[in-house]
Amino acid sequence: MTNTEIPRKTIYRLSIFQRCLQRLKENKVETVSSEALAKAAGVKPTQLRKDLTHFGQFGTRGLGYNVSGLSSAIAGVLGSSRLQPVILVGVGNLGSALLRYGGFQKEGFEIVAAFDSLPVPARAKGLKTALMKATDLTRFIRRQNIKMAILTVPALHAQEVVNEMVAAGIQAILNFSPVVLEVPKNIIVNNVDLAMELENLSYFIR
Amino acid sequence: MTNTEIPRKTIYRLSIFQRCLQRLKENKVETVSSEALAKAAGVKPTQLRKDLTHFGQFGTRGLGYNVSGLSSAIAGVLGSSRLQPVILVGVGNLGSALLRYGGFQKEGFEIVAAFDSLPVPARAKGLKTALMKATDLTRFIRRQNIKMAILTVPALHAQEVVNEMVAAGIQAILNFSPVVLEVPKNIIVNNVDLAMELENLSYFIR
Repeated sequence: MTNTEIPRKTIYRLSIFQRCLQRLKENKVETVSSEALAKAAGVKPTQLRKDLTHFGQFGTRGLGYNVSGLSSAIAGVLGSSRLQPVILVGVGNLGSALLRYGGFQKEGFEIVAAFDSLPVPARAKGLKTALMKATDLTRFIRRQNIKMAILTVPALHAQEVVNEMVAAGIQAILNFSPVVLEVPKNIIVNNVDLAMELENLSYFIR
Repeated sequence: MTNTEIPRKTIYRLSIFQRCLQRLKENKVETVSSEALAKAAGVKPTQLRKDLTHFGQFGTRGLGYNVSGLSSAIAGVLGSSRLQPVILVGVGNLGSALLRYGGFQKEGFEIVAAFDSLPVPARAKGLKTALMKATDLTRFIRRQNIKMAILTVPALHAQEVVNEMVAAGIQAILNFSPVVLEVPKNIIVNNVDLAMELENLSYFIR
């Protein structure tokens, strides 16, 4: 079975199930019914069971799922059991904010370097991440064999940076620039547009 | 026509169309074909035309859309033509990062106050947003008639904070806490889980 046969939404939901399982583990819960896990994840039990069948047989009828067993299995599927190196490009307001955030490391992602067209932006003072010049981007990606990037450059420069990164070997991009990126079919892009999320909410409150 | 009849995905796409129209305006483009606008937004032309029919008749056959006219119409539909006050709850690493971000204001959202259970966290030093005690949350929402909130508290506290905010009058929440929130049917929640977005990408790069 190749990766592409599994629906993207299933992969997303696996991450949600994993968050719920982690909280159960923290609370020393050892087994969980599919109904309880589905409710915590905000999906229907049939959806949970269907998602898990993509990866094998989990759980025992009438007993539910072993929490740490299912969690390990999902970590294996998602590839989140080992630390994944990530680069960040564009150390502007949002970029430096994300570098300060620090919440990625906990989840298995290490931002190994950040790139900007300016040598060391003032707003990036005091950051622990290595700051590098944009001209070193291609070489760094190739030498360190980096596959994932967080993109926080202005919309105007996003596509050219993406073209350069993809040519150097980047395969997956978390894009915060408010622009629809054009990438080859085998490259995956997830878009996060924070202002758009707020705009979407504002529609519903009138 | 009530708000709830329009699919949520249509509302999302309107925001994307709006981004594209704004760039066209910046580039002094006056009219755009549905094919070109759809391509820039990463959707099919039939989808674009169908989305717009929810709100009225736009464009002239053979001539395309008037860029600033369509942009104004979408702003009216989305309610983004006036500045919307928003509060942020949880001035931790991510919360203070978002306060420093500053990209919301540009899109019509003003973070009017930020709340934390600690008086003034050290990491929030130098921020321009008014920092308030969590005990003032309910009163502030009521007095200022705030409808939108950004939630960046730890997962453990997210649900209790939401219960309090909803009781005080909050109708829409942009949730960054990695937890599925339970809210009444008339309350809308958009979830952004940055670590989950990376996890999702990491699956596809092996």
